[in-house]
Parts: sequence; C-alpha cells; structure tokens
Amino acid sequence: MELKNKNILVAGGAGFIGSHLCDSLIYKKNNVICADNYLRGNENNIKHLFDNDKFHFLKMDVSINQELDKIFNDYNIDYVFHLAANSDIQASAKAPQIEFKSTASTTWALLDAMRKYNCKNLFFASTSAVYGKQNYGLLSEETTPLYPISYYGSAKLASEAFISAFAKMNDMNALVFRFPNVIGNRLTHGVIFDFIAKLRSNPHELEVLGDGTQSKPYVHVSDLIKAIINVSSENKGLNIYNVGVDSETDVKSIAQFVCEGMNLKNVKINYGENNIGWKGDVPHFQYDLRKIWATGWKATMTSDEAVKQTIDEVLSCKA
Amino acid sequence: MELKNKNILVAGGAGFIGSHLCDSLIYKKNNVICADNYLRGNENNIKHLFDNDKFHFLKMDVSINQELDKIFNDYNIDYVFHLAANSDIQASAKAPQIEFKSTASTTWALLDAMRKYNCKNLFFASTSAVYGKQNYGLLSEETTPLYPISYYGSAKLASEAFISAFAKMNDMNALVFRFPNVIGNRLTHGVIFDFIAKLRSNPHELEVLGDGTQSKPYVHVSDLIKAIINVSSENKGLNIYNVGVDSETDVKSIAQFVCEGMNLKNVKINYGENNIGWKGDVPHFQYDLRKIWATGWKATMTSDEAVKQTIDEVLSCKA
Repeated sequence: MELKNKNILVAGGAGFIGSHLCDSLIYKKNNVICADNYLRGNENNIKHLFDNDKFHFLKMDVSINQELDKIFNDYNIDYVFHLAANSDIQASAKAPQIEFKSTASTTWALLDAMRKYNCKNLFFASTSAVYGKQNYGLLSEETTPLYPISYYGSAKLASEAFISAFAKMNDMNALVFRFPNVIGNRLTHGVIFDFIAKLRSNPHELEVLGDGTQSKPYVHVSDLIKAIINVSSENKGLNIYNVGVDSETDVKSIAQFVCEGMNLKNVKINYGENNIGWKGDVPHFQYDLRKIWATGWKATMTSDEAVKQTIDEVLSCKA
Repeated sequence: MELKNKNILVAGGAGFIGSHLCDSLIYKKNNVICADNYLRGNENNIKHLFDNDKFHFLKMDVSINQELDKIFNDYNIDYVFHLAANSDIQASAKAPQIEFKSTASTTWALLDAMRKYNCKNLFFASTSAVYGKQNYGLLSEETTPLYPISYYGSAKLASEAFISAFAKMNDMNALVFRFPNVIGNRLTHGVIFDFIAKLRSNPHELEVLGDGTQSKPYVHVSDLIKAIINVSSENKGLNIYNVGVDSETDVKSIAQFVCEGMNLKNVKINYGENNIGWKGDVPHFQYDLRKIWATGWKATMTSDEAVKQTIDEVLSCKA
C-alpha cells in the first residue's frame, strides 16, 4: 500500500522515533492521527505539526479499548504504526508493571481494534532485546531460542507473538522491525543523553555504568525512518526484519566523542567493574542484516557517524 | 526442591490437568493452595479434596494483583504451578480477549507476585501451539521461528517471554513444558469429548470438523503428571521441554475408537473438506522428545492407548 493520502494511526507518535515518523508521513501527504499518552513522548517533539491540517493529535492511552474504538470510528484507518511502548529499559527494571501496561497491553489493544474495524496493515517497532543474551555469532531473524533478559524485551517479544496470531487469524499484513539502539535528535535517554547531561552538570568528571567495553550498533533515526517507509509500503503478510548497521561503537568511544563534541579536555572518566551497564543490559550484539539489505535499504551512516551526528544534534538543541 | 511438605500454589488447579496435579501433590504430603476462577475449571474436579487439611481452595482470578498479594501474604509459597489459562482454542478464536485476560495476564500477575514475595520456583504449562504451523520435521525446543497462528498459542508464547525475563531478573527457577494434546478423565473439550457428546445425542451420525486426516500425538494426563512432578523437583534455572509421545492418532481413528467404545455400529460419519478443523488449528505436528527423555521420563501409553483409555474413562464417568 503506497503511503500517500492514507489515514495513518501512529501510536506513540509523540515519542523520539514516532515523531520523526509523523514528520515523514505528513511530508508524504498522509493524514496522520498521532496518539500518545506523553509517558515517554513529549509535546515538544510534535508541536511544529499542530498547525498542519493533516495532523491530528490525541492525548490518550492506546491500551484502553474504548479510546481506540473512538479513533477507529472517527477515522477510516488504513495503516497502524505501533511505536507506543515504555522505551526506558532501566526504568522498567525497577517497576516491571510499566512494560505490561505500556508495551504488551498496547499491542493487544491495537490488534484487537484492527480486527474489529477490519484494518489490515500494521507496522510494529520491536527490538534487539527480544534476543536476550546470545553467546556467539550474528543475530539473524531465525536465531533461537529467544529468551529475553529484560522486562522490556519480554513485552516486545510477547507483542510479536500477539501480532503473529492476529495476522494469521485476520489476514493482516504485519511488518515487524527489530530496532537496535536508535539515536538522533529528540533522544530522551540512553548513554549519549546521559553523558551529555552528566557533563553539563560536572564537566570535570564522568561516571560510566560498566567498564566501557559494551559495544553496540547505533543507527541514526533518519536512516531508520527511511527503512520503515520503504519496507512498510511494500509489505504483504507477516515479516520480521532486523534493522541496523554493520558497524558498532563502544561506550569508551562514546565518552570520547561526547567530550570532543563539548570541547572538554582532561575529563576524569570513572569506569565500572564489568561489562554489564545494569541488570537486563546486553553488553554486545551484532545483527545479520542480509534480509533488510535485500529490500534495497542500507543505512547511510556508520555507527560512529550516527553517534557523532547525534551528539551534535543534542548539543545544538535548545530544549 | 523436593516436592514434599511444601506450600504449593496451583493456579488453575480446578481444571482438567490442574486437578490431577493437585491430587498428586497432595498425595506427596504437600500443602496445596488451589486457585481457580471456574472459567474452565470445575468444582467436580476437586470436591473430593475439600475435606483434606492440606488442600485450600480459593475461587479467584489470578490475573488480579491484589488477590495474589493476599495469597502470598497468607501462605509462604515455595512453588507456583501455573496452569491457569483459557484452554479452549476454538472459544477464543471467536473472542480473542479471553486469551489476553486468562492466559497472558495471569502469567504476568503471578510472576510479579513471585518477584515481590521472593518466590523462586515456577512451573508453567505451555503448548505445542507456540510453534504455529511448521512445514516439516520434528519440532524441537530450538525450532524457529515461532509464529503462533492462534490467539491461544500467542498468549502462551507471550507468557514464555515474560517468564524468561522474570527468571533472569530475579534468579528464579522456571520450568516450561510445551504440552501436546492432553487427554484423560475430567476432560472438558476437544475431539474425544465432542465425539462422545455428539454420538450420545445422535448415535446414527457423526459430523467431523475437517477431513479426518488431522493427526496429533495424544498424551494421557497420568503420564503428563508424572513428567511434571519428576522434572519440576529437579529444575534449576530456565528450562523449556517438549512433552509428549512419539506416536500419534488421526481423527478418523478417534471416530472409530469412540464408536467401538460406545458399541455403535454403522454410524454415518460425515467428514469436512480439508485437513483444518477450524481457523487456528494445526493439522499435524510431532515433537522431538530427546530432551525430556534424557530426564528419565517416558510416557507409558502410546497415543492410541491414551485415546482408548480416555474414551473408557469418559464413558464410565457419571458426570
């Protein structure tokens, strides 16, 4: 389904990634219904769209069936992009219930509304966290077993399971992207965000969770949005893709890039004792990306480039 | 943990399988707290235990956190056996919400209570339905990808995902058995139950869903309970097992065995047109059972023997 002049529900559309997706869908002349409860989302991410006739914002919780009924009754929804979730793994490690309500329940409620109102097209933002801690090799979409080690990863994997059944039972087209670490403008948490915040408060010293060797692929949100738009407009049936970059950046390098970006010299960096940032953290992974590359998409920025650009964007942002 | 003189919560303990498990745990001198909302469970399955000092029945919904808090406060629970679920796949095909509430939410609520009250041992009743429809070969615990095609299968797979995260985050021992078709006394639905009910109502004719070639492994509940008791008392960490028999029985044979059991001759059997009994049905599967066999357990009855014994049990049951 060509994503043009369509009625599109973006759940979690005021979030970091969701708001960039709204921008892109509006740019392509779609009618965007953006639903967000501002748990992780933020009005600042979308207020530039408030004057646009094609943008409709609803502050609401998409885990509530009655609220969804209202949307599907008011708009003839062609496509649902589901990015509503708790995206802060460290936060839910302390309060797991957040994941059930904000991540797993939202998926079920959206799927059930799609079933009731005969909406056939879904995009779902999943995560590398579904893989848990695998001991070796590249993670492909077929890697097994999937034993997530964080509540966040488990709620995303549960969502994938729900999607599989609803897609099969109702002949839906469902596209699932397993995101890696996504960074860029409007970032709300994570290592880059934390380092900048800490160094703004104390430019002489930086406390690092873990020993700095944790190394992950970082993809820039602009590259990710292109992948979402390209593949979702072609999708038929249930398809799961890893999305990311084949390079990676370790925490030590991020600390160095942030110090350089902030023009700070002689910062005393204090590392932790092992390579686990926090309980539930996966210290390293890398994707097998052949499936997504076969669609014609490839990230334009390496992981290091994405990190450096994000540092520039966050530092130049007045918010 | 030896299952003797322990405080054991059996969620779904008034159900078909749960009630047999209660019997066995009581026989082994445990204190059994049986929680059931009678959605699929039935007082008839457990009333023989009501006079036993070691049996405590609570009619309640285990998806409600406050109700669980009460149990964990009142009893020092050593082990949770979680068999609470909607077990009728055809029922939830028409009303998917049942699976979210009765199957996925119950798992999350129990896990969160275990986390809060520091209970470290869980058994979970999962299902072959997590595998969806695989095209070839034996299903091993490592088979991938897992794309369930029923809401039931998706809620069970979601439960497995939740269990993985809670087990890792809280150092729990969690044992997951993926049940095949389980049959025996106290059965509440399924092909044997249906055929007997239909032939009792009309002994001349039998309507069969599908063409009769659907063929599955049936395990007798008495064999299954032995596996649960044996492996759960030894379990450390997170472990998933297929449980079943390496033989199978097709629907045509079941029809024949039921007619023989009921002494009915010349029954006109009307078959459907394809090998799918209903939407979400998986017409055939067989497990790789080497992992469970390595524990020392093996079913004593073949699939045909289990079917025939179940027919005898159901027919001789006055209920």
